[in-house]
Amino acid sequence: MEQPIGVIDSGVGGLTVAKELMRQLPKEEFIYLGDTLRCPYGSRTKDEVRRFTWQMVNFLGQYDIKMLVVACNTATAFVLPELKAHLNIPVVGVIQPGARAAIKTSRNRKIGVIGTEGTISSKAYPNVLKDIHSEIEVYSLACPRLVPMVEQGILSGPEAEHIVDESLKPLQHIDEMDTLILGCTHYPLLKPVIQKVLGNQVTIISSGEETAREVSTILAYGNLLFHGERKPNHKLFTTGNLALFQHIANNWFGYKIPHIKSIRL
Amino acid sequence: MEQPIGVIDSGVGGLTVAKELMRQLPKEEFIYLGDTLRCPYGSRTKDEVRRFTWQMVNFLGQYDIKMLVVACNTATAFVLPELKAHLNIPVVGVIQPGARAAIKTSRNRKIGVIGTEGTISSKAYPNVLKDIHSEIEVYSLACPRLVPMVEQGILSGPEAEHIVDESLKPLQHIDEMDTLILGCTHYPLLKPVIQKVLGNQVTIISSGEETAREVSTILAYGNLLFHGERKPNHKLFTTGNLALFQHIANNWFGYKIPHIKSIRL
Repeated sequence: MEQPIGVIDSGVGGLTVAKELMRQLPKEEFIYLGDTLRCPYGSRTKDEVRRFTWQMVNFLGQYDIKMLVVACNTATAFVLPELKAHLNIPVVGVIQPGARAAIKTSRNRKIGVIGTEGTISSKAYPNVLKDIHSEIEVYSLACPRLVPMVEQGILSGPEAEHIVDESLKPLQHIDEMDTLILGCTHYPLLKPVIQKVLGNQVTIISSGEETAREVSTILAYGNLLFHGERKPNHKLFTTGNLALFQHIANNWFGYKIPHIKSIRL
Repeated sequence: MEQPIGVIDSGVGGLTVAKELMRQLPKEEFIYLGDTLRCPYGSRTKDEVRRFTWQMVNFLGQYDIKMLVVACNTATAFVLPELKAHLNIPVVGVIQPGARAAIKTSRNRKIGVIGTEGTISSKAYPNVLKDIHSEIEVYSLACPRLVPMVEQGILSGPEAEHIVDESLKPLQHIDEMDTLILGCTHYPLLKPVIQKVLGNQVTIISSGEETAREVSTILAYGNLLFHGERKPNHKLFTTGNLALFQHIANNWFGYKIPHIKSIRL
């Protein structure tokens, strides 16, 4: 199927998911919308997150998308069931793929999750994990300092290590935890620092990679894959500052995306 | 949904998939049928594999299964599209999950695949890989000596290392290959030996783990997961020698499966 896949996020974090989607599904076309203007969603109320998410979905309606990826953990935690119930295309969030990957990876069923305050307080990860496997022990931790850090471009070096070390303190005494889910799409950019702080005995799961993998699975099982040859014409939209968004997107993708525009919702 | 999930295989190899399914989906109930009598399928004609596979599927018909897992690479390569077209339940093979996991894992898009003669000559892996990503280079190798070795219980030690080393010779000079798909459900039992022979720079993908992960994904997206609490009552069937099958199953699972029976197709 030729139609594009829609990707929505609260800001730039979901670009890590979009990048993985483009890497694992290079024939598919993506339309990304980041609500940079109202980012972060992590500390907003459920009602606000719901309203903003639906505004984004309605904007994507004009592109006849064949699938919707909610590349934001907070929006997934609060709005996914509602989106699935109301839209007649497959809707994939970032929480279930990370949870399933952690179940596959963990050998002792002791799994940590870090995320924004909204994601952690929603208990979405423990709910999904325990629904599949009752005996899993989940260690959840909100890390509110990490998103602003990434947005400021502090991704490595002593300052990054110091903030990550302080943020992860409560998890560092849990010896048996063998798997950690990065429950926020900003965090993969800090993966090397997080790995250094926690040590190599912990396997780190990036929701972006795992979500892309599941998007690929669901496209295949739903006969929705594009089978021809083409150079996809991706489109990126932001509700915020265009120059800043362009700078971050081009920087993270490693090349210049031709179609980036600013829109109002 | 309470109904069980059917798993079919040419023999005992698919038990590695069943074990992963039970580990990742401990609330689900599985019915496994291994056609041990006519194993291996790897060197049989497409018509034979088709006929045997349909006989197994028809046997499972009496159990009202909610999903079918084809835990045999050869049967997946030859019969999956036909099964999907004719059955009104989701049908999951072992080839696509391994291929998608390799795409996720590989950083340089140079992927090796080992399997039986049937699986390799069917070109099923290169077809799936290239359908998703045209630029992937696939190095395929039939390893006919490995299945008999596993069936004889030679899983480690000098003899195992010698046979694996000889079998993998054609792949060992390909320096850039960063990912190897074990395209046969027997091979995960040789994973430590294969890893030793190829070195740690190669990531090894076990179809069993990846198939279980995708079964979990597809159950969730199809609203087919069992959500309650229960101790599942798995059933195992073999077309061959019962005592031998029981010995291997109990040995691989690490505990005694109560319900194992011998049947005729």
